[in-house]
Amino acid sequence: MIGAGRMGTNLARRLMRAGHECVVYDADPEAVSQVETYGALGAASIADMVGKLHAPRVVWAMVPAALTGSVVDELATELTPGDVVIDGGNSYYRDTVTRAAELAERGIDYVDAGTSGGVFGLERGFCLMVGGKEDVVARLDPVFRALAPGVDAARRTPGSAAEPATEEHGYLHCGPAGAGHFVKMVHNGIEYGQMAALAEGLAILRKADIGVAERESSAESAPLGDAEFYRYDFDIPAIAEVWRRGSVISSWLLDLTAAALRADPELAEFSGHVSDSGEGRWTVQAAVDEGVPAYVLTAALFERFSSRKEGDYADKALSAMRKAFGGHVELPAND
Amino acid sequence: MIGAGRMGTNLARRLMRAGHECVVYDADPEAVSQVETYGALGAASIADMVGKLHAPRVVWAMVPAALTGSVVDELATELTPGDVVIDGGNSYYRDTVTRAAELAERGIDYVDAGTSGGVFGLERGFCLMVGGKEDVVARLDPVFRALAPGVDAARRTPGSAAEPATEEHGYLHCGPAGAGHFVKMVHNGIEYGQMAALAEGLAILRKADIGVAERESSAESAPLGDAEFYRYDFDIPAIAEVWRRGSVISSWLLDLTAAALRADPELAEFSGHVSDSGEGRWTVQAAVDEGVPAYVLTAALFERFSSRKEGDYADKALSAMRKAFGGHVELPAND
Amino acid sequence: MIGAGRMGTNLARRLMRAGHECVVYDADPEAVSQVETYGALGAASIADMVGKLHAPRVVWAMVPAALTGSVVDELATELTPGDVVIDGGNSYYRDTVTRAAELAERGIDYVDAGTSGGVFGLERGFCLMVGGKEDVVARLDPVFRALAPGVDAARRTPGSAAEPATEEHGYLHCGPAGAGHFVKMVHNGIEYGQMAALAEGLAILRKADIGVAERESSAESAPLGDAEFYRYDFDIPAIAEVWRRGSVISSWLLDLTAAALRADPELAEFSGHVSDSGEGRWTVQAAVDEGVPAYVLTAALFERFSSRKEGDYADKALSAMRKAFGGHVELPAND
Amino acid sequence: MIGAGRMGTNLARRLMRAGHECVVYDADPEAVSQVETYGALGAASIADMVGKLHAPRVVWAMVPAALTGSVVDELATELTPGDVVIDGGNSYYRDTVTRAAELAERGIDYVDAGTSGGVFGLERGFCLMVGGKEDVVARLDPVFRALAPGVDAARRTPGSAAEPATEEHGYLHCGPAGAGHFVKMVHNGIEYGQMAALAEGLAILRKADIGVAERESSAESAPLGDAEFYRYDFDIPAIAEVWRRGSVISSWLLDLTAAALRADPELAEFSGHVSDSGEGRWTVQAAVDEGVPAYVLTAALFERFSSRKEGDYADKALSAMRKAFGGHVELPAND
Repeated sequence: MIGAGRMGTNLARRLMRAGHECVVYDADPEAVSQVETYGALGAASIADMVGKLHAPRVVWAMVPAALTGSVVDELATELTPGDVVIDGGNSYYRDTVTRAAELAERGIDYVDAGTSGGVFGLERGFCLMVGGKEDVVARLDPVFRALAPGVDAARRTPGSAAEPATEEHGYLHCGPAGAGHFVKMVHNGIEYGQMAALAEGLAILRKADIGVAERESSAESAPLGDAEFYRYDFDIPAIAEVWRRGSVISSWLLDLTAAALRADPELAEFSGHVSDSGEGRWTVQAAVDEGVPAYVLTAALFERFSSRKEGDYADKALSAMRKAFGGHVELPAND
Repeated sequence: MIGAGRMGTNLARRLMRAGHECVVYDADPEAVSQVETYGALGAASIADMVGKLHAPRVVWAMVPAALTGSVVDELATELTPGDVVIDGGNSYYRDTVTRAAELAERGIDYVDAGTSGGVFGLERGFCLMVGGKEDVVARLDPVFRALAPGVDAARRTPGSAAEPATEEHGYLHCGPAGAGHFVKMVHNGIEYGQMAALAEGLAILRKADIGVAERESSAESAPLGDAEFYRYDFDIPAIAEVWRRGSVISSWLLDLTAAALRADPELAEFSGHVSDSGEGRWTVQAAVDEGVPAYVLTAALFERFSSRKEGDYADKALSAMRKAFGGHVELPAND
Repeated sequence: MIGAGRMGTNLARRLMRAGHECVVYDADPEAVSQVETYGALGAASIADMVGKLHAPRVVWAMVPAALTGSVVDELATELTPGDVVIDGGNSYYRDTVTRAAELAERGIDYVDAGTSGGVFGLERGFCLMVGGKEDVVARLDPVFRALAPGVDAARRTPGSAAEPATEEHGYLHCGPAGAGHFVKMVHNGIEYGQMAALAEGLAILRKADIGVAERESSAESAPLGDAEFYRYDFDIPAIAEVWRRGSVISSWLLDLTAAALRADPELAEFSGHVSDSGEGRWTVQAAVDEGVPAYVLTAALFERFSSRKEGDYADKALSAMRKAFGGHVELPAND
Repeated sequence: MIGAGRMGTNLARRLMRAGHECVVYDADPEAVSQVETYGALGAASIADMVGKLHAPRVVWAMVPAALTGSVVDELATELTPGDVVIDGGNSYYRDTVTRAAELAERGIDYVDAGTSGGVFGLERGFCLMVGGKEDVVARLDPVFRALAPGVDAARRTPGSAAEPATEEHGYLHCGPAGAGHFVKMVHNGIEYGQMAALAEGLAILRKADIGVAERESSAESAPLGDAEFYRYDFDIPAIAEVWRRGSVISSWLLDLTAAALRADPELAEFSGHVSDSGEGRWTVQAAVDEGVPAYVLTAALFERFSSRKEGDYADKALSAMRKAFGGHVELPAND
């Protein structure tokens, strides 16, 4: 295991719980020490880690997408033919295709394993979307099965075969190199969309009391014609909670949101600058390349950009136009 | 219970399972007979139904939003002061506010109970979002509790009180008249958004093989520069299945989608004309009134309009403009 | 003329230039004095203004939408049967329908005249979209013709009749009461969309140098894979200028934008809080009511909401979810 | 001139009107013959064309983006150091960067000239957005000046210098290789957005009579609550015409749209399958790479995808979900 951050540590721990032995390396020696307390063997460098493994080795890289390239380059020089590298990070699937081809020239197999589950994966299991050569992926089956949540994690879908398929355990060989990262990419794109849908809905509930406040009217702002219909003072944490049982929108994201709202109903600890880590962008680019309309996934991505004030120049341009044609002067914020 | 469709029947059955007695009326006598087989007492008219109940009566109306008005009007003439009407349908919350005020003049209480759960509610329980006067809603507690899924339907949220609140049972008094329907409206708006996010993602996976096909190039179509990266032939039912366990997007909607895809992987039985039943529209209008950006919820609604070819005039106008400025001639569909 | 703001003053001046006499009232006596310098007769109150006109009177109200109601109410008590009120403001067309019906009961005609042209209308003429009864609108023809830009303001459309129709002069009787404001509403909706399209494009040009800057990589941000393709330092005022001649997007809005950018290339005088004055909202609501997909017009409206930070609660909810499932910690703004 | 389609022919004619001599080649000999009637010297092949020019040659390639690569490859073998290739087509700016570097190795200069103006460019002039080396672009000044519309094509922007800059003539050196195509790409992205804004608005006007028709109500469709406000039967060609004079949205696109609507008010000749030729897609990808929210430009692109029914699988997935959770059965199209 290369990388002992939130994800790497939990992957290693879950593997060890299933009886696998793990050697762990991280650029941060503190992180390595931490994982050693869970029973892993620490390594001081990639070379050290490789030396502590017996061929044919299986190395799982769990590092930020921006670092995967250099890690894989270093691995390429240390590993020997027959070894396998698993990239569990959020790599761009095109990079994966390229890396798999490069390692194949050295006789090293490359497997991409899109990994979902977040910080809860240790207990809940990880959902694994795998790409790579059929036989290599088959050989790794015990690894994936140990990490996956298992069949009991959800009610079986009606019409399933008696013997559960791997996808019912929570892992799936999706296709050749890059297929796992492609599916993980789309998974995250959907995640962005579902998060945004929920967040927008909560924001609409939150402002349902707008009719209570007095509003000054001017040529610069629309009168709220129906103030009497916007006088609800909703208990948003309670609403998130009630939706968790029996509603069509019950989901794990909602469970987490309800918990976050219970802990901090005003969400006061957050500034609202929402990062994006690449997969939402790549999903949009895939939609554009394929010619598939993806209004929702794209809007969800752009809302993250907007949250970081990336659209400010456009906003200023709008103000400049309004001043130019109508003499409109900007009102102060939150008019 | 007025209305013995999918929802009304299941509500009545779940109430009867909990020991409540139900009188059921539906404009369709067949539907009434059907519910009688589950132990309900059938009624031949609204007046008949009212006559078979003892005051103070509780009448649950579960009819399409477009019919609620006339049903309530008729109820208003049959019921007596102290009776309660519960509107469990997808009514526009503003209509609810108006109706509650009208019935109040006759001494009849009006409670709105936004009801989610679909055809699975009988077994799974219904999620209930309730609006109305405090004391009236409190008196109806046994009804709502019988219908709701109950605390065990989901893991309790960390930090909850020892004694579960009603929202943890799956029902919540959200506020005064209309509050229940407002919250249900936003719930459905979110539902539209989450459905669209998932559907768009599946469509992107579906077309990930676009690079395999030959494409002719012309000034009218963009060349696919990266055909080699779009050669995946994904097993979409298996992917929906794998996401059900351990992933961040696991949800009840995904469970249902996985089941639908298993039964019909090509979704060949559907034409793709997606209806909308009002709540998505009202959610957008609330967002607009409140000044809350709701890109995702709105796009999800518009995609339903588009699916029904409601945007065709705009499309034709685009083609007309392209012809006008560039001499572009339309290609046949699905170029 | 009631209202001597930017628009009212210019309307009166253009009417007077065409030989019409104008009595002008404004709540602000300074504004009235100003218009008197252009030759208008000032009035101290609505009653005073009415008294200074000969029946049958024609009163043009040019006030913010939020004030139109009270102005019309006062006019209703002062005017006499046979008089005409023209509402040239950005009123909601539904209010217009209601007001027209109310004034009709008193024998007063009500005409809605959606007015576009902004502060340049004095020289350029005003585009007028008129609703009301056929004969009344016909009687007002000299007024509309005086205000409109005239046939020479644009090249005639091929295939037009020898005798120019009124729409070729720049005014059009669109239909019964409210029709003018409906068309003006949609006009402004389109305006929002076209402004947003231009603003977004400029913002993309503006950030085309993003590849020059160093960017730190982390799990919280996507690496910019193609930095070498984002090293353009564009002269945005010059680009806006070049598009004005010969390009498909040449337009009056572009002319104004080019002028604004020349005066202030950084748009430093603007904070980017963009107001909206109702018509964009009503356009979206009409689209939703009609079931017409209007992705672009709606997104343009929501961008204005976003510019005013109205989406902050949703953003915070996203950050809360990311922290909950992935332990992600918010980066500072503009990461 | 390579390419004697709509654009290439008009470019050659406009150059010849300004006194330049042109040798024209097109894969279609008919097209070449046609241009010869305007005074050009025809060529039977690229080699033939090159042979008919004196070094240092200037070759303008005006071919579909998908063919530019092979044309440039052939040119590379035929031309000699000091020659210049101008790519006037809608090439992806990244390809331009690559091609410029490749030709530079052979001593051939490469200039990208994004060209807007459509079929009207012959009379109206072409708007030219140019990328390439400073000295090479400067040497080509007479070519660009001959093609551009000239200063008189629009009123000069206030504050401009006495001596008009090139952008005031309608051409601009935007930056190094690819800069011209980048700016043209964004130009077309804006064009998509402005076209969509106008088209959506017209569609809203078109359906403003929806309240006249009877509508059946069911649980599957939203009742139209406000039918009385949707009874306008608008004359859309007249409305497009009236907006041409004095309104804020007057533009060249509107001029063309008004002409198209006059010729065919129902737009009956169009099926509404709207092509996209690459630049809209690349604009979205640039926005995503830069992290700039571009809701409007993206929605406009996706509407073109939708118009070609590319979203059908997603629509079917929505129908499948609705059936799964609610037992909803699809209504026939255009319900």
